[in-house]
Amino acid sequence: MILEICKRAKEASYKLAYMSTDKKNLALRKIADNIIKNEVNIISKNEIDIKNGKENKLTNALIDRLTLNKSRIEAMADGLRQIAELPDPIGEITGGFRRPNGLEIGMRRVPIGVIAVIYESRPNVTADVAGLTLKSGNCVILKGGKEAINSNLAIAEAITEALDEAHVSRDCVQIVSDTNRESTIELLKMDKYIDLLIPRGGEGLKKIILEHSSIPVIMATAGNNHVYVDEFADLDMAEKITINAKTQRPGVCNAIENLLVDERQATEFVPRIAGILHDLGVEIRGCEKTCKLVPFAKKATEKDYETEFLDMIIAVKITKGFDEAVDHINKYGTHHSEAIVTENYEHARAFLERIDAAAVYVNASTRFTDGFEFGFGAEIGISNQKLHARGPIGLLQLTSQKYIIYGNGQVRK
Amino acid sequence: MILEICKRAKEASYKLAYMSTDKKNLALRKIADNIIKNEVNIISKNEIDIKNGKENKLTNALIDRLTLNKSRIEAMADGLRQIAELPDPIGEITGGFRRPNGLEIGMRRVPIGVIAVIYESRPNVTADVAGLTLKSGNCVILKGGKEAINSNLAIAEAITEALDEAHVSRDCVQIVSDTNRESTIELLKMDKYIDLLIPRGGEGLKKIILEHSSIPVIMATAGNNHVYVDEFADLDMAEKITINAKTQRPGVCNAIENLLVDERQATEFVPRIAGILHDLGVEIRGCEKTCKLVPFAKKATEKDYETEFLDMIIAVKITKGFDEAVDHINKYGTHHSEAIVTENYEHARAFLERIDAAAVYVNASTRFTDGFEFGFGAEIGISNQKLHARGPIGLLQLTSQKYIIYGNGQVRK
Repeated sequence: MILEICKRAKEASYKLAYMSTDKKNLALRKIADNIIKNEVNIISKNEIDIKNGKENKLTNALIDRLTLNKSRIEAMADGLRQIAELPDPIGEITGGFRRPNGLEIGMRRVPIGVIAVIYESRPNVTADVAGLTLKSGNCVILKGGKEAINSNLAIAEAITEALDEAHVSRDCVQIVSDTNRESTIELLKMDKYIDLLIPRGGEGLKKIILEHSSIPVIMATAGNNHVYVDEFADLDMAEKITINAKTQRPGVCNAIENLLVDERQATEFVPRIAGILHDLGVEIRGCEKTCKLVPFAKKATEKDYETEFLDMIIAVKITKGFDEAVDHINKYGTHHSEAIVTENYEHARAFLERIDAAAVYVNASTRFTDGFEFGFGAEIGISNQKLHARGPIGLLQLTSQKYIIYGNGQVRK
Repeated sequence: MILEICKRAKEASYKLAYMSTDKKNLALRKIADNIIKNEVNIISKNEIDIKNGKENKLTNALIDRLTLNKSRIEAMADGLRQIAELPDPIGEITGGFRRPNGLEIGMRRVPIGVIAVIYESRPNVTADVAGLTLKSGNCVILKGGKEAINSNLAIAEAITEALDEAHVSRDCVQIVSDTNRESTIELLKMDKYIDLLIPRGGEGLKKIILEHSSIPVIMATAGNNHVYVDEFADLDMAEKITINAKTQRPGVCNAIENLLVDERQATEFVPRIAGILHDLGVEIRGCEKTCKLVPFAKKATEKDYETEFLDMIIAVKITKGFDEAVDHINKYGTHHSEAIVTENYEHARAFLERIDAAAVYVNASTRFTDGFEFGFGAEIGISNQKLHARGPIGLLQLTSQKYIIYGNGQVRK
């Protein structure tokens, strides 16, 4: 069954790879329309998932992520229409040159082929991912979690109907109806048919994938991020940025988990920011020096500096200077989004140069690492790996390239 | 021991990442000089490997690949000097823009970090790879095969001495002196320290890697390539290209293994090209129709169409037309290098569009898929995977990028 899905996807991918932009956009708009048309059915299937979830004692946060309503379904459809408006990345000539022997070599942007996405709980991912992969000319195999299976199947049905209407093969967007672990592992071995795997889920899923996958993976992994308040920081700006990066939405990967402060600013800044954060409900875990300055701070452990809390907790460390801060971030961070607050030109330059992360900021909140905030539009996630796609995984990152070579009889000597 | 090597490499990588181009080039030239200076020692250590190889009954071809002499050592040094001449890819701003909120976002080319290269027999790989990784700002961990261990260690010693002289950390180029399988498997688990793994070796090595590696991999894999002689081909050109692509150097990945001929050209072209190839010592394995036209052809099996012979053998198939040829190539090929010979404009365009391969040619030999032939300079291999690096893996493909973001206090709303 998994094998059949994969074979059909591979077969369909050759045709989708050179489908016209108009036809892909038409399909996207028809999917959006059909999701709205099927709203009643989708919501009734979603209610089954919610009922099951409550019986299985899912947390309120998970139930909330699972829940679809009229406005969320409209947002799904809007997202698809927005993807239709984005420029088509496929076919772009990204470069080219002529060789002395007369060969003309161009680099053309092409789809990756077949992409499998394994995800948990949020049913809107089904529509978002289908939209991004279709627009970028890739066939997709979707495997959602069991908590959302009824919702996912209802959305997939609406997608399939719309593909039929648009005369696009329904093999371009397929969903795996099995939700067990065995079918995940089977999928992970289909490197003959699947070109790329994108997991969206927790550490458990990632572990299974690292252990079993023979398919190249792009992971949207953890963001254990820092704001570093430099010796030469504007402290009002440092306050504003720290509060935003920590509290504006603490449960996402581009929020910060750590605050580093140069010791020459510590006496003034640490009690001040700790007080504000404390009042906002943030738990402070500090180094020894921090604890001396902040009576309500808990002692931070080594593990705290390694942890992505995704919660109203912050680890604070007072550093001896710029170098110690840079070394700390490169050692403990997850290379996602890192920020310095400074008015010093050389420190700003050196931070941008020496910090090893997908996005490095001077005097701005880390919360901007996001496809929409960067102006790229919708994305599948934020990658902090260094190969292929670093940062937001949008349409462009779902492409590959090929060399196209025009000759007139050249042979190699 | 492996763990210590990896930790040292990671530590050194942060400094190498922003080392000046001049300093890297100086180190490269010093390595070249020191390899020449240590010629006598390298050759004497190489003689031990050759002696062991003969005792272990290595084939003549393998002994030849293993052998170093004065001219091969000079070629190694020249290669390093050429790498010093190439432009430094690191630091390039590949794009940038300003957002409505005033954030300025740039994309900067940066090293990948720590790269491990696992390779077999050819000791010159030690110097070539060290040169490419150093120039691209990456620390490298080299693990060569046991057949060449004495040569590899002698070359590595010459590299280390030169790094000392250039005041570059010797942790930038390290070699694993163990040659057993256990240390390979240990290395494959070091995803905390190693950012990229590049294997250069046979199918056995690749299998171990697919099974055990938790590190992202770029593979230089097989080239089961085709020349397709279209209905509208110039047959003189088709002859020249087929002979070149098959026989000019049959043991390499950009040579062809298959010839497809449109049935409307078959009666004239197939006996003609088969005769020439036969005279050049190429064994012909053909489809039924081919066997009828060519008395000395053997019957091709399904497996022949899937095989990278790397030898003077060619599988020939007469196809019903353009579509069948394209489908055959996408199904049986390994997506490496594919060529059509045609004078028809639409067939040329459609072939470039529809063939899924790293390099797609019109009217030229597939033998040009190569870093030097493309004008990129030295390379670690040719990738036919779609992620990160497709085609020659040169300096540019050994880089990643990061977003650098200049703000003046922006926070997210």
